[in-house]
Order: sequence, then C-alpha cells, then structure tokens
Amino acid sequence: MTQPIITLTTDFGLTDHFVGAMKGVILSIAPKARIVDITHGVPAFEVREGAFALEQAYRCFPKGTIHVVVVDPGVGSQRRPILAVGGGYSFIAPDNGVLTTVLQREKCVVREITADRYFRKPVSQTFHGRDVFAPAAAHLAAGVTPAKFGKRIGNAFRLGLLEVVRTGKRAWTGSILKIDKFGNIITNFPCEEFAVIRERPFEMQVGFEPVSSLQTNYSAAQFGEPFVIEGSAGYLEVAFKQANAAQALGVGVGAPVELKIY
Amino acid sequence: MTQPIITLTTDFGLTDHFVGAMKGVILSIAPKARIVDITHGVPAFEVREGAFALEQAYRCFPKGTIHVVVVDPGVGSQRRPILAVGGGYSFIAPDNGVLTTVLQREKCVVREITADRYFRKPVSQTFHGRDVFAPAAAHLAAGVTPAKFGKRIGNAFRLGLLEVVRTGKRAWTGSILKIDKFGNIITNFPCEEFAVIRERPFEMQVGFEPVSSLQTNYSAAQFGEPFVIEGSAGYLEVAFKQANAAQALGVGVGAPVELKIY
Amino acid sequence: MTQPIITLTTDFGLTDHFVGAMKGVILSIAPKARIVDITHGVPAFEVREGAFALEQAYRCFPKGTIHVVVVDPGVGSQRRPILAVGGGYSFIAPDNGVLTTVLQREKCVVREITADRYFRKPVSQTFHGRDVFAPAAAHLAAGVTPAKFGKRIGNAFRLGLLEVVRTGKRAWTGSILKIDKFGNIITNFPCEEFAVIRERPFEMQVGFEPVSSLQTNYSAAQFGEPFVIEGSAGYLEVAFKQANAAQALGVGVGAPVELKIY
Repeated sequence: MTQPIITLTTDFGLTDHFVGAMKGVILSIAPKARIVDITHGVPAFEVREGAFALEQAYRCFPKGTIHVVVVDPGVGSQRRPILAVGGGYSFIAPDNGVLTTVLQREKCVVREITADRYFRKPVSQTFHGRDVFAPAAAHLAAGVTPAKFGKRIGNAFRLGLLEVVRTGKRAWTGSILKIDKFGNIITNFPCEEFAVIRERPFEMQVGFEPVSSLQTNYSAAQFGEPFVIEGSAGYLEVAFKQANAAQALGVGVGAPVELKIY
Repeated sequence: MTQPIITLTTDFGLTDHFVGAMKGVILSIAPKARIVDITHGVPAFEVREGAFALEQAYRCFPKGTIHVVVVDPGVGSQRRPILAVGGGYSFIAPDNGVLTTVLQREKCVVREITADRYFRKPVSQTFHGRDVFAPAAAHLAAGVTPAKFGKRIGNAFRLGLLEVVRTGKRAWTGSILKIDKFGNIITNFPCEEFAVIRERPFEMQVGFEPVSSLQTNYSAAQFGEPFVIEGSAGYLEVAFKQANAAQALGVGVGAPVELKIY
Repeated sequence: MTQPIITLTTDFGLTDHFVGAMKGVILSIAPKARIVDITHGVPAFEVREGAFALEQAYRCFPKGTIHVVVVDPGVGSQRRPILAVGGGYSFIAPDNGVLTTVLQREKCVVREITADRYFRKPVSQTFHGRDVFAPAAAHLAAGVTPAKFGKRIGNAFRLGLLEVVRTGKRAWTGSILKIDKFGNIITNFPCEEFAVIRERPFEMQVGFEPVSSLQTNYSAAQFGEPFVIEGSAGYLEVAFKQANAAQALGVGVGAPVELKIY
C-alpha cells in the first residue's frame, strides 16, 4: 500500500496538543501515511464509548486500514498494548476491552506489542498515545510485519457486553448504549432482531416515558413526541424531531430500556 | 485531477463517529481523495448557518473542489439530494436551501441525485451523510460525470435571504447573520455597500446598545467599548476588544440591527 | 520535499469556517501540502497557551515541517508577522511571543514578513490567518526561499517565561503552565531538574492542598487522592486518578505552586 490509512479514536479531545503530537510521530515514521480522525471526543476513560465509535466506523474504511484506539485509563500500568489483525484491518489499542466488538465480529490474530524498538523513546508514563500506539501504528504502516511486534496471545480482555435479555414471553430488557450529539438515544436492541415492531404494536420504555410510535424518518414525526426509529448504527433509537431526546427523557448511557411487543 | 479535494461541512459535531464514517466511505470509493473539514460545528439543524460557513469558505479552495454540505433536518424524508456545478466547483447537499448563497453567486447547473447505484447500501433512514452524500461525492471525485447522477432541475429550494431593508432616508434595518467563536457579531450589512461609514458619523444599534465608533482593527479599540469593524466575511461586525460582544450585548442570530448614517 | 507538511495551531475553534478557509487558501497555493492540525482549541487570545501547545508538538514532526501559529489578539495592528527558521523547522506567526519557547530552544533566523505579494488580497483587518499566515506558509511550502519574505530582525518579541524560583534552601515557587483536557495540572517544574523527588520526601502545594505522593502512573494511585507525576510534557504534574485535578483543587493557569523537598 503506498499511502496506508491510519485512523485515530481517542478521548484526548481537541483542545490540547495530544492529537497533533501523535500525528507528528506517525508522519515522522511513515511519511506517506494518511491519518484520519474517527473521533477524539470519546468521554474521558469511557472504554465502552470508544468501542462503540470504533464499531460504527471501522468497516467504512478500505481494507488495509490501521485503526488506532487510545481510550486508556490504565496508561502506564501493566495493561498490555495489543495489535489485532482480522477482517482485513489492523487494530492497535490498550488491552482494556476497547476492541471487544471487533474481536467478536472479526476472526482476529491478537499479539501483545512488546518490541519496544518500535516505541518513541523515552516512553513517558502518561502519554502512550504518542510514545507507544502512534509509533507502533506507523511502523506497521511502513511495512513492519505483525509478528515483529510481539507474540500471539489468546486472552485479550473483553468487556461483558450489554445484551438484550428476554424477561417474558413478549418482554425484553436492554440498555442505552450511546447518546449521540443530537441527543438521540441509541439502545442495544438490534434492528434486525426486532424488525417485528414494524408490524406489531409495541411499547418501549425509556426513563418514565412509554414510546409506542415507529417512524421511518425524523421528519415524519410530530414535534414534541418521542418515537422509535431504526438507527443508522444498526440499533433501535429513541428520538424527538429536532430535539434532544436524552435531555427530554432525562436518561443517559447505561440506563435500562424495556420493550414489550403485543 | 489526481488528488481531488472534498470538503465537508456538517452539523454532526466531532464527538461521535459520524464524520469518521463519512471519511471512510469516501476513501473506500476514491482512495486518492483529499478530505478537508470546513466545519462540523454548524448548530444542529441550522441550515442558514451551514450556508454561511460554506459561503465564507468555498472560494478559498482550488477550482475542482467538491464541497459536501450535510445540515439536513429532513433526512429520510422526500427532500432531494442535489448536485450543483458552477463557478468551478461542485456542491453536494440536501435540497433544503443550504446552497442558497452558492446558487445566487455562481451560475450553476443543478441536478437531483437519483442514481442510487452511487449510494452505500442499505441506505439508512437517518444517516445520509454516510449513505448518500459521501459516496456521491466520492464517485464524482473518482470521475463519474455529473449527468450520471440524475436529471437537471430548475427549482432547487432557496432560502429567503435576510437582506438589509432601507427604512428611511438615512436608516436601514438588517439582522445578525452569525455569532462567531469569539462572540463577534456579524451583521448582514455588506461592507462595500456601507463603506460610507468610514467618512460619515453613524449609529448602529444592536440590542439596546448604540455603537458609533468604527475601528480598523480589534486592538485599536478601548477595552469595554463596542465598535463596528469591516469584517473578514465581507459584512459589518460589532465587536469588543478581546471580549465576547454577543454576550455583552445579549443578542443572537436573527436579532435586528438598525443603522443610521448622519 | 514533494509533500511538505504544514501544521496549524490557533485559537479559532472548530465551529466556524476559519480553519477551513485557511486550509483552502493553503491548498490553492501549495496543492501538495499536507495540513495537520495541532490544535485550534487554544483559549481565545491566550498567547502563552499557544506557545505551550507548539512547544509540546513541534518536535514530533519530521524535519522540514512548517508550523503556523495564529493566536493573535493584535491582528490588524502594527504587530509584525514573522518567519523563524531553526532546528530543521520553519515557524510562521505573529510577533507577539507565541514563538518564545521555540526561539529559546532552537537557534533561529527570524525575518519580518513584509513581502505582501505572498498575501491573499485584499488583506482583511481581522483574519490574517487566512490572508497573511496561511498564504505565506503555502508559498514557503511551494518553494519560496525564506529571504524572499523579508529582512532579518534581531528583536522578535519574547514573553517573560514563568520559571521556577528558589525561595529557600529546600523551597521553590513555580506556577501552573497548563490545565489539560483531563484536568491534570501541568506545573512549570521541569522533571529533570527535580528528579530528586523520586528519592526524597517532598510536599507540593497547589491551591490549599499539600501533595506529597509521587506516582509512576495514573492507575497506581488511589481514587480521590491527589498525587504528583512526571508528565509527558516534561514537567511535574498534579493529578487525580480518573478525575479532574484542577476542578478538585480549584486552581487554574498561572496559579502559584510551592515545592519543598525534605
């Protein structure tokens, strides 16, 4: 690949020099790399939200892309840096579960990154984005083979994923995966599995509000009326027309969502 | 063009995966495209502010640039995706008025984008940035000719623009177009048309504050004194030296602005 | 260099068209330039914070990189635009001290940029990022030699830097340089000079809180206990495990920091 793509997903924000420093390190090692931000707005230390952003974006990129994820509350501790290769992509991240959904979906070979000759020296205690993950990704982009980074491991850490649980014949309990920028509430109910709500009456309860209307687009709804929509992330969402559903319903990530289908 | 430029202007923000996903889609179709963000900080659903950002930036780019604008409260409804070609640029956007200023300034050929073979499948109901606009732009960058996207239309939607109205021999009423990041108040009074304020006493009223001083730069003013300045956007602005004028005067986008020239 | 790198560090934020316009101007003049953001989140007008972001990132980039810094409260006034070349890098900025740390660390040749043939016309009074600094950087990237931009000057403005002062046999007074996105408090105590705290008891006072624990990583600490850590920026930091130290201790940039070593 002449111009390898490296994506970045972090909780570093954009107000400090952190992201710029990582990009400089990458370009110093792999001058032809094309660096694309997925997001640097993952809430601080929120590994699950980092995993969600990556899950939603990684397959949009061409095969061969190297995805770097640095949401890393354990920076400087014994947690391992890892390299996972699978599905046509490479992933570089701390071994803290941020790759959970990737490891579920793609058959991956996972390695612990131990070859510190690919690190920036001296390695700081607090900024492995710059000193470990960015240079490892750049060396990979520049042609170093995965095996050179370290040995295969079989025990990469995986988060317990929040899956929908059936609680009755026609009742399920799930939770809120993500509130997006518009305040849309992304649940963990997969659209495909619950496609039956297109045909049957249902009630989804989020906070104190029962929602029983399904819309095919945001504009079709009435202002001020919450509705369910099959979201672009592949999950059922609860939304308001041009308003912030999470604020209106007073809910956040992790809150329970109940679904009954009649 | 070997490395076509695609710019992005949206209200998606930078905290979610939305922008990253769009870029991945573009690079999958047009690997050589160079993607440049104009801004993703357009306030949610604010078509006029999207139009303003585009108006201010599009001509700074080289001819041949493809400008994608996704401020799209009607996503998933019957509003059309359109492709406008004019002034040496191409524009891809929903047909909701976000191209109004471009269509005024450039002689454009406008087409409805109907050729869904250029869309990402399946097309979601809620994320046409990823599924419609980004792939259309990428195919255009990759060499598909405009005519292949759909038929010409003559009725692209245009916003009623807020123009300055003369209300007396020496009196005009306009409004606030934009508050910038520094709190500078950008009015819709074009600098060129009102260049006479360089020579004649005037009073511009914004909120409850009459402003009658014209400065040629921010530093020339006193702290705490509002002044008028000929802004870089081509419009008269009301500003404070190193302070947030909009907050100080308690005004926002759309508020009226009165000008008297003596 | 076939694909020169231009970095941008500004206080323009990302919600307006400012940064997009600068990039368009650069690409119009230097189509092969690769533009990388260091940050656009420098607090408005805060020259010292701009200098800090630049100091932290510039050496991460490959030699030959052109660094543009626009934190420019004096835009439109008599302050000079300057070009500094040293350490393998070029720097373009207003002459207001934002290059202070660079000028300290690198032996630089500094020129006043007076050759207005390299400016975008007409030059606005308020947006020299677009009209002066971006086009100058682009022309430099496109091969114009530094001498063509203007004459050498020997009196570039330098900020009085806030250095640690010894106030007793075992006592020093310094100050807070920066609060990062995570709320970590970056002091101006250089890690190298104060490496003795690894071996000797100490007390660092920030706000009303005496901190006497040194940690080698964020995770090693207890929740709710402030600690000192040798930060990635090269300075001692005061932090909390997964919490915002600056908020917890009620301090901001410029506040004093006292250190006693026993």
